[in-house]
Amino acid sequence: MRIPILGLGRILLVSIQVDLTDSDAMQFQSDLVERVAETEALGVAIDITALDVVDSYMARVINDTASMVRLLGAEAVICGVQPFVAMTLIEMGRDLLGADCAFNLEQGLEVLKDRIAKRGDTRFDEDEDA
Amino acid sequence: MRIPILGLGRILLVSIQVDLTDSDAMQFQSDLVERVAETEALGVAIDITALDVVDSYMARVINDTASMVRLLGAEAVICGVQPFVAMTLIEMGRDLLGADCAFNLEQGLEVLKDRIAKRGDTRFDEDEDA
Repeated sequence: MRIPILGLGRILLVSIQVDLTDSDAMQFQSDLVERVAETEALGVAIDITALDVVDSYMARVINDTASMVRLLGAEAVICGVQPFVAMTLIEMGRDLLGADCAFNLEQGLEVLKDRIAKRGDTRFDEDEDA
Repeated sequence: MRIPILGLGRILLVSIQVDLTDSDAMQFQSDLVERVAETEALGVAIDITALDVVDSYMARVINDTASMVRLLGAEAVICGVQPFVAMTLIEMGRDLLGADCAFNLEQGLEVLKDRIAKRGDTRFDEDEDA
């Protein structure tokens, strides 16, 4: 099962709505990273509102994916971490360190747009200084 | 296989990225209509950019779904109809009459927001008159 990736302008939206097997999770990771590179996306929002359980492996995949997206030059935001998921992750000693979190997809998009705008500004400033 | 439905504020986004079997298509239709009712969504964008082929049955499902969504009181926009799909549909004598179309998901969202804003205005006017 492949997770659909939606393009919204230069932002990509992904919603994980079913528990993924380990191989599906890796497929998701490579699909998303390839798609970011292909489309030169500016930001990625990963929505996990529908996930009631995020195990240690899945947490690492999400974390790594966000870090990879950053390395490519895009921003990443995780949306909709459920209270129980947050509790479990912290209790397991796992955090989603690779990415910022937002309450839902809508707020995640706002965060991404802010970030992208700020990056644009900084680049512009540097250009002006040069 | 269930098509994930993403919530963006009070707009729902659905992206059909694989060819659906007839029963998957019906599942998609009922999932979407139920979700619209549940969340009292104001608009729905159905993205079919990834579909290279839309057969007569699928066209009817998309059309009917859009009409159902309208009946519930929400707006519906079909996004990303591919040129070949458009040619085939018209040649088959089928049209996507139930819904407006937009070039891509981004423009589809704009159309929805415009429509929703206009409806809001009308309702407001009626309230004022009363």
